[in-house]
Amino acid sequence: MSEQTHKTSQSRRAFLRGAAATSAGALVAGSASANAKPDKLITAIQPWAQELGDGVDATPYGLPIEHEADVIRRNVPWLTADAISSINFTPIHALDGTITPQGCAFERHHSGAIDLKKEDYRLMINGLVDTPLVFTYADLERFPRENHVYFCECAANTGMEWAGAQLNGAQFTHGMIHNMEYSGVSLRTLLEEAGLGAAGDLKDKWVFVEGADASSNGRSIPMEKALDDVMIAFKANGEALRKEHGYPARLVVPGWEGNMWVKWIRRIEVMDQAVESREETSKYTDTLEDGTSRKWTWEMDAKSVVTSPSPQSPITHGKGPLVISGLAWSGRGAITRVDVSKDGGMTWETARLAKPGEPMALTRFYLDTDWNGEEMLLQSRAIDDTGYIQPTKTQLREVRGLNSIYHNNCIQTWLVSPNGEVENVEVS
Amino acid sequence: MSEQTHKTSQSRRAFLRGAAATSAGALVAGSASANAKPDKLITAIQPWAQELGDGVDATPYGLPIEHEADVIRRNVPWLTADAISSINFTPIHALDGTITPQGCAFERHHSGAIDLKKEDYRLMINGLVDTPLVFTYADLERFPRENHVYFCECAANTGMEWAGAQLNGAQFTHGMIHNMEYSGVSLRTLLEEAGLGAAGDLKDKWVFVEGADASSNGRSIPMEKALDDVMIAFKANGEALRKEHGYPARLVVPGWEGNMWVKWIRRIEVMDQAVESREETSKYTDTLEDGTSRKWTWEMDAKSVVTSPSPQSPITHGKGPLVISGLAWSGRGAITRVDVSKDGGMTWETARLAKPGEPMALTRFYLDTDWNGEEMLLQSRAIDDTGYIQPTKTQLREVRGLNSIYHNNCIQTWLVSPNGEVENVEVS
Repeated sequence: MSEQTHKTSQSRRAFLRGAAATSAGALVAGSASANAKPDKLITAIQPWAQELGDGVDATPYGLPIEHEADVIRRNVPWLTADAISSINFTPIHALDGTITPQGCAFERHHSGAIDLKKEDYRLMINGLVDTPLVFTYADLERFPRENHVYFCECAANTGMEWAGAQLNGAQFTHGMIHNMEYSGVSLRTLLEEAGLGAAGDLKDKWVFVEGADASSNGRSIPMEKALDDVMIAFKANGEALRKEHGYPARLVVPGWEGNMWVKWIRRIEVMDQAVESREETSKYTDTLEDGTSRKWTWEMDAKSVVTSPSPQSPITHGKGPLVISGLAWSGRGAITRVDVSKDGGMTWETARLAKPGEPMALTRFYLDTDWNGEEMLLQSRAIDDTGYIQPTKTQLREVRGLNSIYHNNCIQTWLVSPNGEVENVEVS
Repeated sequence: MSEQTHKTSQSRRAFLRGAAATSAGALVAGSASANAKPDKLITAIQPWAQELGDGVDATPYGLPIEHEADVIRRNVPWLTADAISSINFTPIHALDGTITPQGCAFERHHSGAIDLKKEDYRLMINGLVDTPLVFTYADLERFPRENHVYFCECAANTGMEWAGAQLNGAQFTHGMIHNMEYSGVSLRTLLEEAGLGAAGDLKDKWVFVEGADASSNGRSIPMEKALDDVMIAFKANGEALRKEHGYPARLVVPGWEGNMWVKWIRRIEVMDQAVESREETSKYTDTLEDGTSRKWTWEMDAKSVVTSPSPQSPITHGKGPLVISGLAWSGRGAITRVDVSKDGGMTWETARLAKPGEPMALTRFYLDTDWNGEEMLLQSRAIDDTGYIQPTKTQLREVRGLNSIYHNNCIQTWLVSPNGEVENVEVS
């Protein structure tokens, strides 16, 4: 209804003054059946104001309203041989703010999400410790707790894009990420409980962490990181971890690749070397142009993406005021600035951060602009507090070549057409 | 299994050294059927490590695992005549951290939760404005957005406790509260869009806000607050508001009583006086001892509660290390300190805040202690950045008497028995 208004408006104020006029009619139109006559419509009371709604006993635990039924995790069947060892994607194109609800936060399993009761849960700490310990879930709840908001990004996020623009939607190009408030115990506390005297000099020591699922998903973590900020988390966004997120306890490894955030954490062994397990040799390494591979590329580099407009979130309101929004994050610290380009990186505008960036957590950015229907090559570029600047795809390929799957943090480009539709493209 | 260990342990380290020994057996016991023989148990592989779990296509939108089925909103049927105009309670006794998931965040409705589609949604701004405006949902999405974490507390929270200890559980005494990250547009932006020139001097002006549900739940808000930090929110914790939280848009009135956070917000009228509607005269006022009533008691005073241990979260692990945890908040600013008493307020220990308090948001506190099985009268006392100190029930009654229902922010007392059970009691 307000297309015409938009076409003739240049400023937000002008736009809405106009919109108001047309909307007055729209208000009425929206308030009764489309076939009713105007004179009837003026006095019509909307049906939802004439009836009683649901009582407070309707949904002891609520789900999203049916009108949001498309805002769900989605998997790409052809990506993997089986959904048991696969990934699904967070619908970041439809979310705002920074917190990811557990119900739509992406999952990655190597042998499926297992059912492990709290009473059956055990965590063993062994190896080079003074006293090997086994903790029950109830034991873990008796140690001092911490609360932190951190992002968890799969190293394969954006991995399909190395060779070119492949997947059409921010959910699929950048949706292997979520951001939650974790409550749990620091790994340092548990390691000190077992005692690290037996380990001697800690600077070259490691911990090997494994999960209780059939894959066990073993990974080695340098002791320095293990004693810094790694957590054993049992709550996310206030409530128990969901089954698919590692109930009843998972490892949280702030800023580092998601594969190390071992779910259903079962054992932590202090060792004098890295295990170099399958997950850190044949997988989660980056093969370069010359055939050699980068390994132990744990830290997730600074990265960002415009979530709206994007292929799944096109511009439907025509010309005029447009909110460009997206997410930025860095595994090395806090986001200090995000720039947005409308012309494929030739010129940049500094976006507004909804809040100052927090270390190893998602940051929401906005650029409030007017769109006059021109074609746009939309990009965002993240800068973190180490001074690191998110690279272009060309810059990344110069260093890494085309053989990599993991750790693609290059600048994403969306082509916005005059009709408001958006697609995933590559600019050289 | 570790009862005996606990009885003989005095320190956390001693406790866990002991627990480890017993837990080694427990690990085995937990790893196979209770009837299997020890020699078999030693080599047993847990069933959840022998089977594949759920694939990533199992739950496009996930719910909590079945083992957490009791962590839900609960209502108290005898509190109100009908569930359509009633309240349910957040299970704060079972949550940690600060974020409340929408699915278990308390609801209060006056005529039920209505089904209002985005395409049918309209927001009118009228009254003393230069240009009355009607916004569609799509219009709202085109204004600059903000993100803030705020608590929303019903003025009736803890209201049953005026006359004495009534409800046995933190969920029921203090569960009319939730804390979410809201994304939306500031009301100031929309009022300035309509233009406030026609309102003249703004200092004595008001806005009257009403919802699209049958109750309309109209409330008056002073212009000063309306132009300060009030939001029209359309996302909570990143995703669309749930139906029961006002989908597609609700008012957010930081720090002020939940009744003013009008859901399905339909109209905002700029006026030269307060309407003094039913909701601000016959309800949401506080009748004092002499029969006169306090009105316009919008700001929620500083308050706190120990969520664990509490009646629904008793001590089940026996003597030794105990984590005392709870929530604190203030409608006037940030929480700066929380004290915890084990002896009904005779002596106090300063609790550890998980993070520095944020304005008008929940703060999580912890007290890491050793419990030797003695009876405790557990209390918490919040202090905010205005210097306000949460009062005792006696202090509150001296000022307010016993006729009030709303705005009970007094110190809560839990009686912890030697067997670990907890009940709601009153201390004089």
